[in-house]
Parts: sequence; C-alpha cells; structure tokens
Amino acid sequence: MTPPLGALAPPVLAASDVDQASAAEAVLGALFTLFVLFVAAKLGEEIARRLGQPGVVGELAGGFVVGPHALGWAIPGEVTAVLAEMGVVILLFAVGLEVRTDDLLRVGRPAVLTAVLAMVLPVVACAALMQLTGAAFPTAAFVGLALGATSIGITSRVLAEMGVLDRTFSQVILGAAIVDDVLVLVLIGLVSGISTGEVSASTLVVAVAAVGMLGLGFAVARRARGLKREVFTWPLFADTPLVPSFILALALALIAAAIGLAAIIGAFVAGLIVAETEARDELHDEVRPLSLIFTPFFFAVTGAEVDLGALLHPELAVVAVALAALGLLMKIAGGFVGAASIGRWPAAVVGLGMAPRGEVGIVVATLGLGLGVLDPGLFSVVLIAVVITTIVPPILLARAVPRAVEKERADASHTVAA
Amino acid sequence: MTPPLGALAPPVLAASDVDQASAAEAVLGALFTLFVLFVAAKLGEEIARRLGQPGVVGELAGGFVVGPHALGWAIPGEVTAVLAEMGVVILLFAVGLEVRTDDLLRVGRPAVLTAVLAMVLPVVACAALMQLTGAAFPTAAFVGLALGATSIGITSRVLAEMGVLDRTFSQVILGAAIVDDVLVLVLIGLVSGISTGEVSASTLVVAVAAVGMLGLGFAVARRARGLKREVFTWPLFADTPLVPSFILALALALIAAAIGLAAIIGAFVAGLIVAETEARDELHDEVRPLSLIFTPFFFAVTGAEVDLGALLHPELAVVAVALAALGLLMKIAGGFVGAASIGRWPAAVVGLGMAPRGEVGIVVATLGLGLGVLDPGLFSVVLIAVVITTIVPPILLARAVPRAVEKERADASHTVAA
Repeated sequence: MTPPLGALAPPVLAASDVDQASAAEAVLGALFTLFVLFVAAKLGEEIARRLGQPGVVGELAGGFVVGPHALGWAIPGEVTAVLAEMGVVILLFAVGLEVRTDDLLRVGRPAVLTAVLAMVLPVVACAALMQLTGAAFPTAAFVGLALGATSIGITSRVLAEMGVLDRTFSQVILGAAIVDDVLVLVLIGLVSGISTGEVSASTLVVAVAAVGMLGLGFAVARRARGLKREVFTWPLFADTPLVPSFILALALALIAAAIGLAAIIGAFVAGLIVAETEARDELHDEVRPLSLIFTPFFFAVTGAEVDLGALLHPELAVVAVALAALGLLMKIAGGFVGAASIGRWPAAVVGLGMAPRGEVGIVVATLGLGLGVLDPGLFSVVLIAVVITTIVPPILLARAVPRAVEKERADASHTVAA
Repeated sequence: MTPPLGALAPPVLAASDVDQASAAEAVLGALFTLFVLFVAAKLGEEIARRLGQPGVVGELAGGFVVGPHALGWAIPGEVTAVLAEMGVVILLFAVGLEVRTDDLLRVGRPAVLTAVLAMVLPVVACAALMQLTGAAFPTAAFVGLALGATSIGITSRVLAEMGVLDRTFSQVILGAAIVDDVLVLVLIGLVSGISTGEVSASTLVVAVAAVGMLGLGFAVARRARGLKREVFTWPLFADTPLVPSFILALALALIAAAIGLAAIIGAFVAGLIVAETEARDELHDEVRPLSLIFTPFFFAVTGAEVDLGALLHPELAVVAVALAALGLLMKIAGGFVGAASIGRWPAAVVGLGMAPRGEVGIVVATLGLGLGVLDPGLFSVVLIAVVITTIVPPILLARAVPRAVEKERADASHTVAA
C-alpha cells in the first residue's frame, strides 16, 4: 500500500532479503545521495562567494567533488536526474515570473539576431576547425552544433543571483535563448538527417509545432494580463496561487518536451503567463523557497557528471581547449554584433550569457556518438569543451554585468538629461 | 556532464538507442508520472472537500485511481518513493515547527500512557483473534504488531488541515507517536527474534540509541530557545533560515533512519528545534510552499500502492474487516483510557489519531512475509486491514475534532470563570 517510508526496518533485520525492506533502504540511500549533493552544493557556494565568484560555480564544483569522478560519495542516478530536472524547471519558472512579455517582444529584433549569429558563428567556426584537422563533414557539423547550442539554466541563475533579470540585456538573453532552442531543434534534425542520408519532413513539423507552442504561450500571456487572483484560487485545494501555477508549469514543461523543445522553455512560458496576472507578487514569494531547495540539485548533479579524465591526454586536451576558446569567442562575437543596438557592454554580456552549453551541448554530442558520427575520443573532446564553455562564462559574467548595468544607467540618465 | 535535462532529443530521433537520449526519456517519463500523481491528488482533494471529507482522503483516493491497481496511469517506482519520503519528511518538519517542546513534555504522562495502551490493546486483541482462528504464536504476534503500530503522517496532515496542531489532544498524539515509534522498534526486534529463535542484544542497543537520540533532540530544542536568526543566516548561501533548516531536517531524518527509527521522527525533532528559535515565524512561511508541493506526493503514492484485490475473496475480506475493526476499536480504547485526563472527546480524538497504520503496518507485515511467518494470503489480509485503518480514521477525525475543540474551549472558559 505504501512506499517504504518509515524506514522502520531496524538494523537487526537489515540482512533480511525482504523486498520492502530493501526498497526502504534504496529510498534512504537515494535520500542520502541527495543530502550529500545538497550540502556539497551549499559548501561550494559558500567558498565560491567568499572568493568573489558566482555561487553557481561553487554548486557545480561541489557536485563535481562529491561526484563519481572525484570522491565518489554521490553517484547520480534516475532519482538525482529527476530532482535536477525539477530544479531547473522551477528555476526557469521563477525566471519567467520576473519577466514581462512586452519587454521580451520589445527586444525581439536584437534577440533573434543574437540567437542566429551566436548559433551560426560558433557552429561554422568550430566545424571549420574540425575540417582543418581532417574530419568529415557530418562529424565537423555535429561538433560545431554541440558548441553552438545554448543552455540558459546557468546564465539565468547568475542573472537572478545578481538581481539583474529586469535589465534589457537579460531580456535579450532570455529571448535569444528561446529562439536558440527552436534553431537547435531544426538543426539537429537537419544534421542528423544529412548524416543518415534521410532528411525527414518531420523536422519541419517539429519546428512548426515548437513555434506554434511558443506563439500560443505568448498570446496567452498577453491575454492573462491583470487576471484576478481568484482565477487561481477558486478550487478548494488552492489556498494560494502556488499549486495551480505549479501544475501549469509542469504541464507546459511536459508539452514542450513532447514537442521536442527543452522542458525548461515550457516552464519559462508558464512563468511569463502567471507573471501577467495579479497573483505575480504572491507567487514570487511562494516560488522562492521552492527554488532555494530544488535548484541546487540541478547544478550539483550537473557538476557530479563532469569527467575531467580526458584532460589527462595532452593531444585531446589541446583540441578541447581550442574548440572551447573558439566557441566562446564566437558566442561573444555573435552577441556583440547581434545585440549591438543595446550598447557595447550590454551586448558583450549578451554574448557571454549565450555561451554556456551545459546539457544541450551534451545531448547533441551524445546523439552524434549514437549515430556513429563522433568516435569516443572525439566525444570526450567535445564534452570537455562543453564543460569549459559552461564554467568559464559565469565567472566572466560576474565581472561584465556590473559594467553593463553602469552603462545602462548612464544611458538612462543621459536620456533623462536630454 | 549533465543529467538529461533539456530533453532536447527531438521526436525525429526518438528511435535512436543512444543512452543519454533514453535516460532523458526516462526522466521525462518519471516527471510525467509525478505530474499525474500530483494532479490526481489535487482533483481527489477537491472532490473530497466538496463532499465535506478531509482533503487527505481525496489525495489517497486520487493516487489509488491513477495507480497500478486501477487505471494504471502512474506506476510507482524509486523516484516516486523518494519524492513521497521527502514529502512526509517535510510534512513532519512543518508539524514540528508548530509544536513547542514544553507543551510536548507537559503532556508526557498521557502521551506515554496512550502510546503503551494504544499499542498493547490492539496487538493483544488482534493476536488473540488470530490464535482463535488457529494461527501459531509468531504469526499471530506479527499480525497484531502490524495492527498495533501507528503512522503519524496522515493524522498530522488532518490536524494541520483543521488548524488544531496547538491543541492539547494534538500534542498528546504527537508525543504518543514518538513513544510508539520506539516501542515498535523494540517489539519488532523481539518478535522477529522469537520467530527466528534468536533474540539479539542489538535490539536493546537500538532501543537505547533511539531513546538517546530523542533525548538529545529534546535537550537541544530546549537549549535553542530564543536563538537569534543570525545563527541560521551567517553563511553567505543562507539569505533566509530555510536552507540551513532544510539541511538540519534531512540530517536528523537520516540519522533517525540509521538508528532504526522512522526518518520522519528525525524531521519532526528538527522542526521542534528550529521552532524554539527566533527564525520560527519566517520558517513557517517558507516551509509552507514546500509542504504544498511535496506532501501530496506522499499521499498520492501511498494511495497508488493500495491493492484492493483481496477484497474480492469473501473469506479473506471477512478476516481483514474483523482485524481492522478490532484494531481500530482497541486504538480508540487505548487513547480513551490513556489520555482520559484531558477529557472525553479529546481522548477519543487521541485514540482515533493513533489509529492509522499506514506504512508502518505495511513494513511490519512485509517483514513477517520475509521471515516466512506470514503466508501470502494472510499478508494480503493484513494489508487490507491496514488500508482500512488508514482511510477510516481521517473521516472520523473530521467529525470528532470539532467536538474535542469545543470541549477544550468549554474547559478553558470554565477555568477562567473559576
């Protein structure tokens, strides 16, 4: 009738081979792993922040230290993966809550331009580098794509930590990340199709469905403006807007994933929608504790899965560092040009914000491995490059964001003065 | 490097046998199961409350309906078990936050008396009934024990829902539940030892460790009185007291489980400790959203594991109902006599509050099955009896609590008048 909750099986009986008792032990083992990851993330954050670095870098490092490729105290599995996914879904829902649809649409032009440039430049540059080293076209294309995709989780967290989600550059980054996700979806379909020799019409269908879902989400958000709190709280189970909003966030995350978008894009759109209603401020307070408890799992688990072993092979390390540097520079260049209209420092922040590849780069590389386009050696190289492009940008962002804020402030006072 | 987060693998590639892609699908599958359980729990709560029943009964029913023994839309596994455990850990932490150590100690005498009587009476009565039907001693003892143990999760939730956690009867129930947990620990050790012919000294060690941990927890709670908020918020990662408190709750839950107590007892003690500090009110607000999101998983998963199949066999159903009725009556009698000093209706509520067996009864029955003391038929009978004693008390509590509150209020005004 119930899951193994009470963990009542006493040590005297621990050796019994009863199913329920061993299931109870598995649950406690998983809970212990989560505890270790959470504490490691928080200790890492503490050290990082005392060193003047973003907390998220410490959470990643903490997860790495206790993970299987270092101390081995916390071995990620399905439970940690699900908690991590819930963590990043809640993070992007919280980020969506801070953003107004109007602001996103206002920066539509630089966002689209940034998304396209910050995708095309690194893909082309990294693919060209690979072709110079003698790789075949599909291989080069997959490596480029792995280093062209953007993962918005880490940047979101840094921007939220610094309290700058309401800045123009943040809105350009978020808008560009959405466009980027649709582009990746299409490009993966195309590159896979070319690799296997069959470009399927379903790539187009998926792209249309993705754009349709995003368009619908935006339209709903605009119609939701000023909706009364009672829209959320009419069910008896909803004393506050939290529970209905959580259901909406999970539902849109699952729909986005079913279409082929990242689940977090759906959660972000859910945040946009509820942010337009009267429940916004109350939800802001209610989502914060959830975010504090859930999101560290995402970063700690991400860190725990990092394997730096390939760095021990000098020839692999050189290619990885070259790819990472090229990918990073091209992302910054893409943002710098794409978002030039919002000013130099803000545009640089946009480029940096688009730079982390995180899980998106990994998924692309893993698909390439599965299709036989990447061999295991090259796969490790790409993973290392992705890790570098994931850890370096937050550190640079912590330096660049204050300058961008200063610039925006100067512009604003200039406008007022004029 | 990362878990399968983005779920980026588009449908066009779904058939690929890439590890990462299938892991991503497993995560999304688990997330979908959690979504179904959560929505079912909330729909169930809505229906239950509109029918004037406690919300928790609806959450259990909702979980049952989508679970493997009915619609089969949500199949519990390790992920749901861990979320459920976190749910009940957070619930008991939240309950601990509402309780003062002094109040618990003040009701120490009726609490201990209730715990002993509400354990001994149903164990003896149900074991006697089994012996009348011809069962051997160890079998009868295990059946009795399964129907003597108390699971505090469901009662806690009902008391919290009704806003009566600060009443004397609630404090007697909570105190008695703690004592009950230690008693069960010892009795399981003894009965298992007798069944297998070897009573181990470790049963005593476990009991001493359990009592020691509880004593230490209470002592720390009393020393924590009036501790400043800064005790929680000196780390940079702690903007509010929530994160350090969550770490404490998980740590004590794991320690309790390691000793052999229920994990939730540790979480409850953690709640008692932080409730004595200045951070109490702030934590109260911060834990609420966590409780709203996590605890439905506990009840929905519990409901999903209910198998009513054995009810289709009339001869099994009769024994099950007889055991449930006897167990329920004896629990009520135990509370009624044990807590007689606090008044008739409050004492009846105490008895009812001790009646749900939930996961504790299941674990005992499963141990008996593993030791070969219970055969599969009898095991099903005990499970059904446990299910009945879990679902009926909340419904009766919803009726009895208002009367007990009225009685306490009348007593209080009487005291004031005198």
